[in-house]
Amino acid sequence: MDNRLFFNRPNQLNEDKKRLISKIDIEREHVGYYNLPKQNIESILNYTKGFDNRIETVVVLGIGGSSLGAKAIYEFLKPTKKLKRELIFFESTDPLNIANKLKLIDMKKTHFLIISKSGGTVETISIFKYIFAQNSDRNLYTFITDRGSNLEKFALDLGSTILYLPNNVGGRFSVLSVVGLLPLALCGIDIKELLTGADEVCESFFDDGKFKDLLLDKALFYAKNHTRYNINCIFAYSETLKYFTEWYVQLWGESLGKRQRHSLFNVGLTPIGLIGPKDQHSFLQLIMEGTRDKSVTFIKLQEFKQELYVPNIQLKHLESLDVLNGIAFHDLITMQCDSVIEALKNEKDVPLDEIILPFVDARSIGGLIYYYELLTSLVGELLDVNTYDQPGVEAGKIILKEKLKNR
Amino acid sequence: MDNRLFFNRPNQLNEDKKRLISKIDIEREHVGYYNLPKQNIESILNYTKGFDNRIETVVVLGIGGSSLGAKAIYEFLKPTKKLKRELIFFESTDPLNIANKLKLIDMKKTHFLIISKSGGTVETISIFKYIFAQNSDRNLYTFITDRGSNLEKFALDLGSTILYLPNNVGGRFSVLSVVGLLPLALCGIDIKELLTGADEVCESFFDDGKFKDLLLDKALFYAKNHTRYNINCIFAYSETLKYFTEWYVQLWGESLGKRQRHSLFNVGLTPIGLIGPKDQHSFLQLIMEGTRDKSVTFIKLQEFKQELYVPNIQLKHLESLDVLNGIAFHDLITMQCDSVIEALKNEKDVPLDEIILPFVDARSIGGLIYYYELLTSLVGELLDVNTYDQPGVEAGKIILKEKLKNR
Repeated sequence: MDNRLFFNRPNQLNEDKKRLISKIDIEREHVGYYNLPKQNIESILNYTKGFDNRIETVVVLGIGGSSLGAKAIYEFLKPTKKLKRELIFFESTDPLNIANKLKLIDMKKTHFLIISKSGGTVETISIFKYIFAQNSDRNLYTFITDRGSNLEKFALDLGSTILYLPNNVGGRFSVLSVVGLLPLALCGIDIKELLTGADEVCESFFDDGKFKDLLLDKALFYAKNHTRYNINCIFAYSETLKYFTEWYVQLWGESLGKRQRHSLFNVGLTPIGLIGPKDQHSFLQLIMEGTRDKSVTFIKLQEFKQELYVPNIQLKHLESLDVLNGIAFHDLITMQCDSVIEALKNEKDVPLDEIILPFVDARSIGGLIYYYELLTSLVGELLDVNTYDQPGVEAGKIILKEKLKNR
Repeated sequence: MDNRLFFNRPNQLNEDKKRLISKIDIEREHVGYYNLPKQNIESILNYTKGFDNRIETVVVLGIGGSSLGAKAIYEFLKPTKKLKRELIFFESTDPLNIANKLKLIDMKKTHFLIISKSGGTVETISIFKYIFAQNSDRNLYTFITDRGSNLEKFALDLGSTILYLPNNVGGRFSVLSVVGLLPLALCGIDIKELLTGADEVCESFFDDGKFKDLLLDKALFYAKNHTRYNINCIFAYSETLKYFTEWYVQLWGESLGKRQRHSLFNVGLTPIGLIGPKDQHSFLQLIMEGTRDKSVTFIKLQEFKQELYVPNIQLKHLESLDVLNGIAFHDLITMQCDSVIEALKNEKDVPLDEIILPFVDARSIGGLIYYYELLTSLVGELLDVNTYDQPGVEAGKIILKEKLKNR
């Protein structure tokens, strides 16, 4: 994985950087996600090894941090290889959506993972009730929750398997914990490689590797310009990264959109996920000529096994497009990405950078995920927010409970 | 369809409104989309009637304005009813994506719609070449393009059917023209109802109905506050509206992100599409506590045929969630939406409104589409931009052509 910044790195900020690193070092002692790349995954691998081979579909009942990470990785890898099992995610109380997904399921070949950190997520429990009313066999379910939650107690009584979130790992930072690793391992995805990719970025940052200054500079730039460039786009040139951008939107938006710890100000940075070349025909115009309030990070794939070429045929009247003949689609999409980067470099005031993923594999996506988690922590620290909570969503939950009681 | 504004409508702007309406009246004489609801659709219905019944899949080869509109309507209606044919959209040069979509196609039961306004869209023609090299039977293809384009000439030589975009209808405003209507009619979707829904909003606006002041007030508010609230979110409480939000992102972003006509300033408003309740666990925190730079429009469904209930069962230790028992999922998702609106009303500085769609049907989505097209035209006029062009995307295309020539 590589990253090149095309904006001017902030100068002479050695003191700022030192202060930031020392704060992150302290954080690392009590924020759990930092150390997930080095966790012991024996129990997950053992659970997977002993898993019933007749099960073809694993349903993830979870929402937000309980689903977005696994989905991002699953959808990234799925198009390139035949996976051992299929994952289906129930993430909504939308009745049409639930009904149509239920139709896809053969209960005899399905296992359900109920994932809820708090154990009391309305969406997850309401759908669980629906399924549990039809089949209460304890072997059908595995629960992932916090130690001590009411969901744990329910699962203990039921006699199902329970796996626990590690201490101090928040939902949106939990993809490299059992929350993401278990469903992915059940699909046959190499979770060891995933962690290796994450660990490479981790070591590079904490042991003075190439990502150290790079991430510090990028975080300082984003934070210092947070009122000027209040929108941060990821423009990924691969459909396989579509759900990665959804994961990024949660991570960035929910971590950084906060009241400051030492003031009453509301701050935040707005994440946007774009997919190229499709969004060249949609959002690009706004980046090129709209208000200068956006930064853009391009993500492209370096190597590619899918060999598909534009055939070498001439179409009468369309000769001007013969320049396409014989090109590999992978080279075409990369050229499209590079052309947009070049065009944007000619504009003023659009801070750009590009990330190059070497392959569509577990290691690459593991690295990319850890990179964004680190960047989020750094920017959160600089913006003086608590990166790891989400107090703003409580008000709506309280109103909902009242409405439910009074109906 | 109904719309309620929860922000303070701008006061005493009668002169501004009159000026705006007179400008829109002039625009209406030469901008084609305004009059699409009243178009004659005989030729489309006849084409559909005579269509080969053995065809089960219609592939749309198109990108941006040539696909997003039809996709929005198709994906909105698909979950509620069995459609006559399936639509598959090829919208990317991503080789994995192309290869995986090709696997879904049985060439003997498939027809291809090649949709390109200019006739020279790189993505569309490169994929068309790939398919045409395998099968050059003219009956396999129907072309939709501008009169006089090189693609028209090619199609004439080939002897395939050609349908034409009406004059002065831009790509992203073309969904209610043949571009959207043809693929939708082939799926058995009632395109007359679609236009009826659009016409209701059209007449309401131009003939002093309820949408007149409402749209004027909303447009004036958004335009006057375009630097303060530079981000406009749609928060739709139905998974079926996911692709509608993608259509909205193109319409809003590409129409309004421009250099002003009478200045050198870059202006624009940034569109964001959110789906509830999923994004309550993602983006909502940023809206609740982040920088006050966002407006939010909630969309919810009033009636619903899908009857799915949370079963009336008690789960030990989870008694606090018994309040969910017996509720219809449709009522639950509506309550979730209302709870978030209520919570946001308690925050300062987040301009809110809500749109209520009566049903999941063609008429509702037709109205919603026309509503957003009108709103875009009004805001574009107020921001002093050319709403209907996209000059910013040309630079990248020119660089790409150079790269292709020099490879």
